[in-house]
Amino acid sequence: MGRWEPDARGRLEQAALELYAAQGFDQTTVAEIASHAGLTERTFFRHFADKREVLFGGGALADGLAAAVDAAPESQPPLDAVIAALESLSDFFEERHTHAQRRQKVIAANPSLQERELIKLASLSTAMAGALRRRGVTEPAASLAAETGVAVFKVAFERWLDDARKRTLAQHIRESLDELRTVTAVPRRSTKRA
Amino acid sequence: MGRWEPDARGRLEQAALELYAAQGFDQTTVAEIASHAGLTERTFFRHFADKREVLFGGGALADGLAAAVDAAPESQPPLDAVIAALESLSDFFEERHTHAQRRQKVIAANPSLQERELIKLASLSTAMAGALRRRGVTEPAASLAAETGVAVFKVAFERWLDDARKRTLAQHIRESLDELRTVTAVPRRSTKRA
Repeated sequence: MGRWEPDARGRLEQAALELYAAQGFDQTTVAEIASHAGLTERTFFRHFADKREVLFGGGALADGLAAAVDAAPESQPPLDAVIAALESLSDFFEERHTHAQRRQKVIAANPSLQERELIKLASLSTAMAGALRRRGVTEPAASLAAETGVAVFKVAFERWLDDARKRTLAQHIRESLDELRTVTAVPRRSTKRA
Repeated sequence: MGRWEPDARGRLEQAALELYAAQGFDQTTVAEIASHAGLTERTFFRHFADKREVLFGGGALADGLAAAVDAAPESQPPLDAVIAALESLSDFFEERHTHAQRRQKVIAANPSLQERELIKLASLSTAMAGALRRRGVTEPAASLAAETGVAVFKVAFERWLDDARKRTLAQHIRESLDELRTVTAVPRRSTKRA
């Protein structure tokens, strides 16, 4: 209900990130974030469960990824469907490179935020594994494809944040996937051992 | 300092798990755990930082895995070194199958313990990636091999916990690795697309 507040969510995210970066996560209250955004605490809690959650955007990402895996061509192998879903996030992040860099700095400075970040990544993996099972992929292939895809994404995302050459997130995902395939290929010498 | 308390650590772990399973994690105090183990709270805090940590065994696991990767044959490919390190945990866990099952039930019932579990798994990956870099493995291969190894371990561990056929953890790790290699192999049809 409440009054109509144009992009309240985005304003709260922006205000929170500015305050966390300027004065530290622990030192910032929800009241300050709301006031900095020109909104009320009540509005804050309509959008976010707590002060940590404002950095993690709720469950929208997991839902979006699961939907993308659901919509993948029937013949697409599991890992490719997962990677394509993750690549579809690239445009969204591309516009927010500076935002993402500041956010990462805040998270790196605070162990409780690092925990939440890991939980969020795990929830992406769980959501995509579920979507793969709905496509008929059996276990453990579904979980392995989802976990591996998220590992590729995590590595690619870190490299994209630090990338002075400004390649896109999608390019970094593609490179990390190629690297993963090199890393997981059966080593040539193991054929001798077998 | 304090009196000599034979296997205080193991007794506290056992007592904590029994109480968590019987009455719930949130309902159990450190005082109760200590008393159930016939020890003092002071002794508890000499071994564990808090009530969660008693389920996660400190940093010993990460240190052991890093040491195992450090000691791997020079010619061993990164992912194989990581998997061999993780397989070396198998004997330790084999003796504790029932303990591990009860522990997992407690963790599954409590989101804050699931967070700690993810942090611990991430710390294993970080420790092994560091060991790989010391062997001269470059990034992102080092992080990808470590993350992938931990994903394989996680999936294998869950399957081992549920395994009525009682195959060993090492066997499950080996199977999950084979499955991973199938999942990450370049799909045949992509050669047509390229």
